[in-house]
Amino acid sequence: MTSEDKLIGRVRRRFTQTRNRPRVGIGDDAAILAASGGTEWVVTTDAFLENVHFLRHVQPAKSIGYKSLARATSDIAAMGARARYCFLTLGFPSNCSGPWLDQFLAGMAGGARKFGLTLAGGDTTSYPLVIISLTVIGEVDRGRAILRSGARPGDLLCVSGRLGEAELGLRLIQANSNKRGGVSSLLEKHFYPEPRLELGEWLNSRQFATSMIDTSDGLSTDLGHLCKASDVGAIIWASKLPTVSIPPKLQKRGLNPLQLALNGGEDYELLFTVPKRLISQLPRKLGSLPITLIGEITRSKKILLKDHQGRIKPLQPGGWDPFRAV
Amino acid sequence: MTSEDKLIGRVRRRFTQTRNRPRVGIGDDAAILAASGGTEWVVTTDAFLENVHFLRHVQPAKSIGYKSLARATSDIAAMGARARYCFLTLGFPSNCSGPWLDQFLAGMAGGARKFGLTLAGGDTTSYPLVIISLTVIGEVDRGRAILRSGARPGDLLCVSGRLGEAELGLRLIQANSNKRGGVSSLLEKHFYPEPRLELGEWLNSRQFATSMIDTSDGLSTDLGHLCKASDVGAIIWASKLPTVSIPPKLQKRGLNPLQLALNGGEDYELLFTVPKRLISQLPRKLGSLPITLIGEITRSKKILLKDHQGRIKPLQPGGWDPFRAV
Repeated sequence: MTSEDKLIGRVRRRFTQTRNRPRVGIGDDAAILAASGGTEWVVTTDAFLENVHFLRHVQPAKSIGYKSLARATSDIAAMGARARYCFLTLGFPSNCSGPWLDQFLAGMAGGARKFGLTLAGGDTTSYPLVIISLTVIGEVDRGRAILRSGARPGDLLCVSGRLGEAELGLRLIQANSNKRGGVSSLLEKHFYPEPRLELGEWLNSRQFATSMIDTSDGLSTDLGHLCKASDVGAIIWASKLPTVSIPPKLQKRGLNPLQLALNGGEDYELLFTVPKRLISQLPRKLGSLPITLIGEITRSKKILLKDHQGRIKPLQPGGWDPFRAV
Repeated sequence: MTSEDKLIGRVRRRFTQTRNRPRVGIGDDAAILAASGGTEWVVTTDAFLENVHFLRHVQPAKSIGYKSLARATSDIAAMGARARYCFLTLGFPSNCSGPWLDQFLAGMAGGARKFGLTLAGGDTTSYPLVIISLTVIGEVDRGRAILRSGARPGDLLCVSGRLGEAELGLRLIQANSNKRGGVSSLLEKHFYPEPRLELGEWLNSRQFATSMIDTSDGLSTDLGHLCKASDVGAIIWASKLPTVSIPPKLQKRGLNPLQLALNGGEDYELLFTVPKRLISQLPRKLGSLPITLIGEITRSKKILLKDHQGRIKPLQPGGWDPFRAV
């Protein structure tokens, strides 16, 4: 048995799963997946890399495992699809092969169980840094996926959850405030974001949403993606945004809830459009998850912000761009 | 438009494709794939990393693009499936964003055209080294994929092409002999291996093969995987192996054709088993690709080599193992 075989055995034991069993999973040249009748596959890939997307000495191994899978699964939620299978490509240094790997796998396996995902394959290798590449496959009734391109002028713009929460957690970590106690709940969203699978499927089953995207790069950037795909513009109402509240003892840090909400990345909330005639039927919460009306789609291609003083100004994409520095 | 949008545009322009069009490809949260009726999906992922799997200053960018896709596609061939879609996750440093990236994409797009693959999505990021992670999806008639697990005692063991060719090319590069001229044809298999899609589909359509794997890690290691999955053993006949011939001027280098054939990796040939009663119907070539009978599957779980002197001895897995050093 090779060292790679042993590692694969360790991964398999961690990801025991009974539902969504693939016809052939880990262990052959490729996995074999059979679709239910009348459905389409939804496929996404996402990289999560040490020193680019996370710092190994700051982020718990369990969170790295969980979050790498949650990020990719959020794309499945954003299509209104059900999560089905995942494939893990993983590189790590030899000093991570013990407890670190166990915690990493525990975090990812916990996410997989929560999201309804079965690990169906992958690739592993030795590497100087931790590098993770995930492929997640979902399933959706034929023709029913919610695309970025369906927004129409007059549609209303809604978002789930609270915007800027993950960025606030990141800022606290960067300022080293996370070690001072009393703020650990503020780090939760940064370490353990939740793909909004239930809301995505619910919107799909009710056919409420004309378009949808997840807020992975930040509202201002992701709204730009949605508007570009739909060939429309939008106006956001600053006073309506579900922003974070900054705890009193952190208020000297210059953290601005509006800026966090507009440009903070990694909330993995759903941003979607609803035709005006349906908006009264949309609840303000799904379970405990708030749904907030934050703006409107416009015919003009501009993306605008109406600020707290009622002034309207252009909203520049200020979120995450992996190549901005290039 | 963000820098990432611009890069995605550059990739899209390179991968223009008309067949295998996904219902939704690059540009939404995820791709949407509709299966033909009566088929299953075959999914594989593969990492190709600078300084682990290749050296950027030695291997042409075009080859890096081509080979990363060919490696992953070989797994689809090894299932007897048709290649359909690929997803590229790519990290690279800023000094690779010009001509290097163009050549890389040209190599990969050329491979995609040749293999019948449509690029349907992916993820890109800035990274200090070139890291490539590919997901390739194939399609196969339901229940007809050729697994590793179907070999039965008495089945005969066959292999396509020539074994050790890619390793010979790698050794020449490592010895810096590649720059001395007259050996460039010996590097071809290392830089531009060919996934044996045609043979895989042909074996599938004729139902000749009871089991199959591709020789990515080397015959001794990959045969071990196949035997373990099938719960059988095998005996290989050294005298029958389709080995490379070492050019006269390289014969002082201590290159051993048998060792190259047994343990050399990255040939991406197909290793498959055929029931005895069908072996007379198996041609010795498919087009210009040789098919060679090299051994037999046994009830005993041992993996044995019958050497040129007729002595039988255990064959240890001596191929590539990404964690051997760990």
